[in-house]
Amino acid sequence: MVKDRPTIADVAARAGVSKGSVSFALNGRPGLAQATVDRILAAADELGWRPSNRARSLSVSKAFALGLVITRDPAVLSSDPFFPAFIAGVESVLSRGGQALVLQVVTAGDDEAAGYRRLAQDGRVDGVFLSDLRHEDPRIELCRELGLPAVTLNRPEGSSPFPAVCLDDRPGTVEVVEHLLALGHRRIAHVAGPPTFVHATARADSFVATLADAGLEPAGLEVSDFTAAGGIEATRRLLALPERPTAIVYANDRMAIAGLGAAQQAGLTVPDDLSVAGFDDSELAEFVHPGLTTVRADPYAFGEAAANTLNQLIDGTGDVADVELPPARLVVRRSTARLEES
Amino acid sequence: MVKDRPTIADVAARAGVSKGSVSFALNGRPGLAQATVDRILAAADELGWRPSNRARSLSVSKAFALGLVITRDPAVLSSDPFFPAFIAGVESVLSRGGQALVLQVVTAGDDEAAGYRRLAQDGRVDGVFLSDLRHEDPRIELCRELGLPAVTLNRPEGSSPFPAVCLDDRPGTVEVVEHLLALGHRRIAHVAGPPTFVHATARADSFVATLADAGLEPAGLEVSDFTAAGGIEATRRLLALPERPTAIVYANDRMAIAGLGAAQQAGLTVPDDLSVAGFDDSELAEFVHPGLTTVRADPYAFGEAAANTLNQLIDGTGDVADVELPPARLVVRRSTARLEES
Repeated sequence: MVKDRPTIADVAARAGVSKGSVSFALNGRPGLAQATVDRILAAADELGWRPSNRARSLSVSKAFALGLVITRDPAVLSSDPFFPAFIAGVESVLSRGGQALVLQVVTAGDDEAAGYRRLAQDGRVDGVFLSDLRHEDPRIELCRELGLPAVTLNRPEGSSPFPAVCLDDRPGTVEVVEHLLALGHRRIAHVAGPPTFVHATARADSFVATLADAGLEPAGLEVSDFTAAGGIEATRRLLALPERPTAIVYANDRMAIAGLGAAQQAGLTVPDDLSVAGFDDSELAEFVHPGLTTVRADPYAFGEAAANTLNQLIDGTGDVADVELPPARLVVRRSTARLEES
Repeated sequence: MVKDRPTIADVAARAGVSKGSVSFALNGRPGLAQATVDRILAAADELGWRPSNRARSLSVSKAFALGLVITRDPAVLSSDPFFPAFIAGVESVLSRGGQALVLQVVTAGDDEAAGYRRLAQDGRVDGVFLSDLRHEDPRIELCRELGLPAVTLNRPEGSSPFPAVCLDDRPGTVEVVEHLLALGHRRIAHVAGPPTFVHATARADSFVATLADAGLEPAGLEVSDFTAAGGIEATRRLLALPERPTAIVYANDRMAIAGLGAAQQAGLTVPDDLSVAGFDDSELAEFVHPGLTTVRADPYAFGEAAANTLNQLIDGTGDVADVELPPARLVVRRSTARLEES
């Protein structure tokens, strides 16, 4: 039996580094200390490692395109303000360099890994954005294996060879809860996003922790799906509780605005009977009545920073550091008010 | 020296047609008269033309991607509800077949043609959507020359070899003007979109024609740019007219909502002092106060139909007919009201 050619894993084991580091070093990409690069190249040499034809052809031609795979219902592109604004920020960078964005929507049940493989094939993209990070997200390892440069939106839970562009959701969530506590609310509920998403659980965890710091428990915690329909359902369940919450914090504006409508339909006045807060500061938030208290992130800046970081990584023009964007911040409008004892 | 193989240019010269037409005929794509196809195939035969390996490989290998070039500010992706909804509709079709959308934003002053050439190169996409059709749009001829299958959103003014997916803006615009006339308005103004776009002038022309049918002239006609800032400026100019309009029809919701705010800031009550109507029925329209009377198009269905049509054209599974979608329709809300004589 012929001995298999040494793999990147063999080189990594010999050099005592991750496979991602080996891939980076062998592709001449920045981000590693020179001593590490030297050790990896020496290990590759000793093992007689040679790039496959495919890897070699990939390393010389550029696609001048970046990839974004969205693993959600396609409607998220029109219903969730994050993606259009994020994509606009990405395009503001790409349009300057004549690059394109390859956008692939993978619906539930489809093979997501195949989506990334297709993008990596034939050098269709030079790198990808990893958004909607999940717990134990398999895409980090997948991109590493594919040798596909990537930037993660926020830091994944495990180790990652890729730079992260971070926008911390937590300070905004803490602020919204503290704002409601300061207004006298003690029965505060949360409508969370899907628990598979790191950002959804980050918001829920911050919500629970901030209440716990004040010696309180959530007056209700509903897990929903970021959609308007989900927001309405969750709101109805919360309003039917024996001890009705006096305030509800939603994990996005869309659910909050739908919930606000559901509360009004149920005969409640917002904010007199119920305070409502969202997350996003989408365009809608300012225009609904009453104006929605929410948390402002800046997905356009997120897109710009992610595109710049991914391009730096691809161009190999120096060390690529993680980027920490200004955190999301509370925006107080009229949908939250002091609790009046009735 | 070996005689060079005949090229597509040789076939084109012999048949007396463009290289693009030869490419279409040899690839069995629709859009040419049968007599032209016959002449091209005869010329190719006489010259002994054979597809090159590269061309053959291109004709069998598909990119499994469609392209959309947007020649506007990247921010349009987050600020204009059309594109996210259109893209969502496209993706709803593409995600079923594992296809990707290659999105390229070309900003003003950049070489738009280069954007399409890049997409055509190396079979990066199998076809493109031509949106925001302009007067004397050069992209029709460009795609024909590139041999790049295309679908136009609405019919271009000149001849086109490509199928069109059409959503007629005009009936909705006629309806909105007739609605205002029925409410007793006689001084009605219009804030139009950029005159380079066919859809912007189509709305303005319908507006003027419907007033003319009633023996009226516009109380004002402002050319703007579809942005909120543009809508505010145009509104201020109209409100400063010696004979202030009693109603303003805007070419999109974004300008209408900004104009509504500008009117309210100027101390006017909508609809008592001024009726306001938009175009799009964006999500916002229903939630502003007063709810915005507008015209409802369905950009998601537009995207679905365009993607299906482009895929049919690429698959070559028979004649590809133009698609006529249900026209945009008036949606009456509270921002328009009967004119009270003061």
